[in-house]
Amino acid sequence: MSSRAVEFWFDFASTYSYPAAMTLRQAAEARGVEVIWRPFLLGPIFGDLGWTDSPFNLQPAKGRYMWRDLERVCDSAGLPFQRPPGFPQRSVDAAKVALAGLQEDWGEDFIRAVFHVQFADGYDIAHDATLERALYATIGRHPDVMAVRLQEILAGPSDLRAHTEEARDRGIFGAPTYFAGTEMFWGYDRQDAAIDWAATQSNQGDQE
Amino acid sequence: MSSRAVEFWFDFASTYSYPAAMTLRQAAEARGVEVIWRPFLLGPIFGDLGWTDSPFNLQPAKGRYMWRDLERVCDSAGLPFQRPPGFPQRSVDAAKVALAGLQEDWGEDFIRAVFHVQFADGYDIAHDATLERALYATIGRHPDVMAVRLQEILAGPSDLRAHTEEARDRGIFGAPTYFAGTEMFWGYDRQDAAIDWAATQSNQGDQE
Repeated sequence: MSSRAVEFWFDFASTYSYPAAMTLRQAAEARGVEVIWRPFLLGPIFGDLGWTDSPFNLQPAKGRYMWRDLERVCDSAGLPFQRPPGFPQRSVDAAKVALAGLQEDWGEDFIRAVFHVQFADGYDIAHDATLERALYATIGRHPDVMAVRLQEILAGPSDLRAHTEEARDRGIFGAPTYFAGTEMFWGYDRQDAAIDWAATQSNQGDQE
Repeated sequence: MSSRAVEFWFDFASTYSYPAAMTLRQAAEARGVEVIWRPFLLGPIFGDLGWTDSPFNLQPAKGRYMWRDLERVCDSAGLPFQRPPGFPQRSVDAAKVALAGLQEDWGEDFIRAVFHVQFADGYDIAHDATLERALYATIGRHPDVMAVRLQEILAGPSDLRAHTEEARDRGIFGAPTYFAGTEMFWGYDRQDAAIDWAATQSNQGDQE
């Protein structure tokens, strides 16, 4: 990891990961900080606590608040928003495709496209057709080609399970989570603090 | 409630209520917004979910993060911080005294004093001696007088239960929680947004 980098751990099913993913690149670049994109699955980590659903569903009052707050947050960030059908959506396939894309050169664009189709266009990312749409928006080849590529990726091996294990081992309990070195920051509300930590604390090392 | 007011719902046992309570008055005054102080108990609301402890204890990874984050947040706000003995502390007596003080003219100072003795000085607010210390810091009369006054208040009637019921009915699920009119904001991270909402949205009504 570069001395001025922030790791961005996210789950495509996580609501506040949407404004985070859409704004992070620009905010980090403005401070000379590189972004390392780390998709993982929050479900198994919630499962450790005995939860079989999102806390936003398990706690209805918190869930009602979250949707209203997310609407305000997106409005404030100038991002389109509509509440997607069903929550949380099954994000495992989207995460596998994102990992494949990050091995090539289209991962970051695909990540933003998936968040956009889910939270701005209101599609369900559990469906192959939605992922094909995001792939097409990202790479722009013929839809049939994208469908074949999608199936190849989904049938192949993936580091997603290992990434999720790493998230658990590093104490991640929610998404999005940022790391600047070993310093952890949880939530879109801490995005600026994480970038600032990466920009200033790592900088001290550079000056030696 | 004044047209430019923010209600501040807090529990003395809530960690992020500390930086909130210490900074709110000044931040609100700078925008011409009045603060309505609303102590309540989070325990019964957590109890509705079957929780018998704070989520920061029930989820150890989240708890470890919170203490580090709180340290950073207090540092950023220029507030002294030391981790108090035991968490969450029994806050019912402190809340009763605060309600009594808010009926007179020393409630707000007492609230800040209780948060200070807990999170800056490291005392346990479950103890009468700690509340006497906070009362003495607030009103400044002889310690023996404060001890008598404390016992009078604790033996008397209190609206604390009704406040907690109101919190539940209004959808509060954590602390601190702010209201600007009917608009709810959860967490110290939303303090500025709540004040801004009170300052600008209510303002529109004033101009009619």
